[in-house]
Amino acid sequence: RFGYFGKDKPEVVRLLLCNVSGCLTDGQVYTSVSGEEMLSINIRDQAGISMLLKEEVKVILLERYPMAKALAEKLSERMGCLLLQGVEDKLKEVERIMAEEGLEWKEVAYLGCDEPDVRCLELAGLSAVPSDAQTVALNHTKYTCHTAGGRGALREFAEHILLLKKKARSQMEQDRIGRDSF
Amino acid sequence: RFGYFGKDKPEVVRLLLCNVSGCLTDGQVYTSVSGEEMLSINIRDQAGISMLLKEEVKVILLERYPMAKALAEKLSERMGCLLLQGVEDKLKEVERIMAEEGLEWKEVAYLGCDEPDVRCLELAGLSAVPSDAQTVALNHTKYTCHTAGGRGALREFAEHILLLKKKARSQMEQDRIGRDSF
Amino acid sequence: RFGYFGKDKPEVVRLLLCNVSGCLTDGQVYTSVSGEEMLSINIRDQAGISMLLKEEVKVILLERYPMAKALAEKLSERMGCLLLQGVEDKLKEVERIMAEEGLEWKEVAYLGCDEPDVRCLELAGLSAVPSDAQTVALNHTKYTCHTAGGRGALREFAEHILLLKKKARSQMEQDRIGRDSF
Amino acid sequence: RFGYFGKDKPEVVRLLLCNVSGCLTDGQVYTSVSGEEMLSINIRDQAGISMLLKEEVKVILLERYPMAKALAEKLSERMGCLLLQGVEDKLKEVERIMAEEGLEWKEVAYLGCDEPDVRCLELAGLSAVPSDAQTVALNHTKYTCHTAGGRGALREFAEHILLLKKKARSQMEQDRIGRDSF
Repeated sequence: RFGYFGKDKPEVVRLLLCNVSGCLTDGQVYTSVSGEEMLSINIRDQAGISMLLKEEVKVILLERYPMAKALAEKLSERMGCLLLQGVEDKLKEVERIMAEEGLEWKEVAYLGCDEPDVRCLELAGLSAVPSDAQTVALNHTKYTCHTAGGRGALREFAEHILLLKKKARSQMEQDRIGRDSF
Repeated sequence: RFGYFGKDKPEVVRLLLCNVSGCLTDGQVYTSVSGEEMLSINIRDQAGISMLLKEEVKVILLERYPMAKALAEKLSERMGCLLLQGVEDKLKEVERIMAEEGLEWKEVAYLGCDEPDVRCLELAGLSAVPSDAQTVALNHTKYTCHTAGGRGALREFAEHILLLKKKARSQMEQDRIGRDSF
Repeated sequence: RFGYFGKDKPEVVRLLLCNVSGCLTDGQVYTSVSGEEMLSINIRDQAGISMLLKEEVKVILLERYPMAKALAEKLSERMGCLLLQGVEDKLKEVERIMAEEGLEWKEVAYLGCDEPDVRCLELAGLSAVPSDAQTVALNHTKYTCHTAGGRGALREFAEHILLLKKKARSQMEQDRIGRDSF
Repeated sequence: RFGYFGKDKPEVVRLLLCNVSGCLTDGQVYTSVSGEEMLSINIRDQAGISMLLKEEVKVILLERYPMAKALAEKLSERMGCLLLQGVEDKLKEVERIMAEEGLEWKEVAYLGCDEPDVRCLELAGLSAVPSDAQTVALNHTKYTCHTAGGRGALREFAEHILLLKKKARSQMEQDRIGRDSF
């Protein structure tokens, strides 16, 4: 089509995919005598997800390891977004989601921290790892957070995404004004 | 009135308002399979609240996010002060409390850590953020603690408040003596 | 008596008094929706207590704040030593214990971290604070641990106590040999 | 025998023995009012064990302190390897395992952190301690991890073991090619 005068629309992220263990959480899993498992999340990361949802960036949480169903539901409900667990092949799953949502890689942001995240970190338009990610992930990310996983990395990446989105919008606005002035 | 010879009384804090997640706590929320939620506080922060109450500084805890009622009551009881939760608009709530208590901003201290705290951090006579607060809060505070949220920031701010209070009292005493000497 | 030729016996610690919140623990108290309270201790500190008990140094845990009876018993049992809680006046309590045990201050070691510990830190023959103690405690201790409370400070102090004890013994042995040689 | 032309086969680790408290975990033990005990492990360490198992390095967890049976079983199941608890004499237990498996010390890797691990750290072909290990363990290890116990030390050591294994294999391959070329 001819919208935006045939020029490439500045890239705007429409979906954030975020790994759970080590990204949304600090990777710690608490196990008690009674068999109860426990995770922790940080309120500032929860606020980061809210900020993205408010600006119409969809958020989906991905987890390789199987979690207790009740725990996954609890997290999903608290965070206000979908959580997919037992995701062995993250690339395949992300491509399935992208097809479903009609999205291209440049519209996708990815927060990962370990080897299974490498391909998605490379392909996503925006990608980030927490400061305490594994070396293999640090070597393939576009952005490295100053904060650790489960301690604000997701919030930091969310602010980064929204800042770039704002810039892209302001650029589009500039271009429109420039065009109208002639 | 003519108390204190018409001069401005040195400012003395009469109320501390403290955000819960990220200030009283480190922002971590633990979630277990059985759906139990858990927070942690530090004894040194609890001691800070006791110190303030003993010196007749009232303390009120504010929380934006809704908490389980039982958890809020537990925290409130342990800390020995009121806890208001689900506070969407902190400025409005603080102004309501101030009106109720007959207080001015210069008599209010505020400990916050994120965007919803910014206006109160600006307006309060004394304000502080934990060392690990969000940048937006760091940019609008009067004092930045050396300790992190949920790890002594509240205690540090309490000591700061009490030190200034002591100085103000000693100044008033000095002035009274100076006046009597003539 | 004439033991050790009338000279002062080198000082040897016979009792370690250790504050619980912030010394044995990191000061965090976890509170859950169901009202369950939780603390954490570190295995290396537990090993430190075992080392002291093995070398015939008695260990008593002191806590100012009231704890749930079940929790205090659990901690006491795990650590293998007495735990006294709700101790408002630590100096008074320590002097009561010393009288009971027939000990002098130079035979007592004390690990504290906050204002209520100051007098005992000053009087004890050996005293220490964790690296993250409150300033007021740091100002009155004889030894400052490199490790934080609940993260190895007790173990570090235990090794310090046992090293000095070993030195004192070796000194006594030296003196005896020196004496016998003439 | 004459396999590999009588030369010593490059050493390849076939078994990793890993201490639990302070190595697999950060040494923290959580105790609640109801008497529930809780530990935490990190997903990246769990991934480290999976990596080793996949490359046919057996993993056995050792714990000196007695643990609740249910907790030990839970950990063992999650990690996918045997957990032996109440191991008073680690050297003796490790030698028993080695005899059973028909292994020599040069085929064994050991991750420890405290005094009871010292002899095994000295004897094992490969040995490591977390960055926050006790001094006595740091003084007798072959490799010191950059990460702390329960926060990635096991993962780091696993990658170190697998890298050396890869190198040894590639060396064997080189030697075979060199030999065939003449």
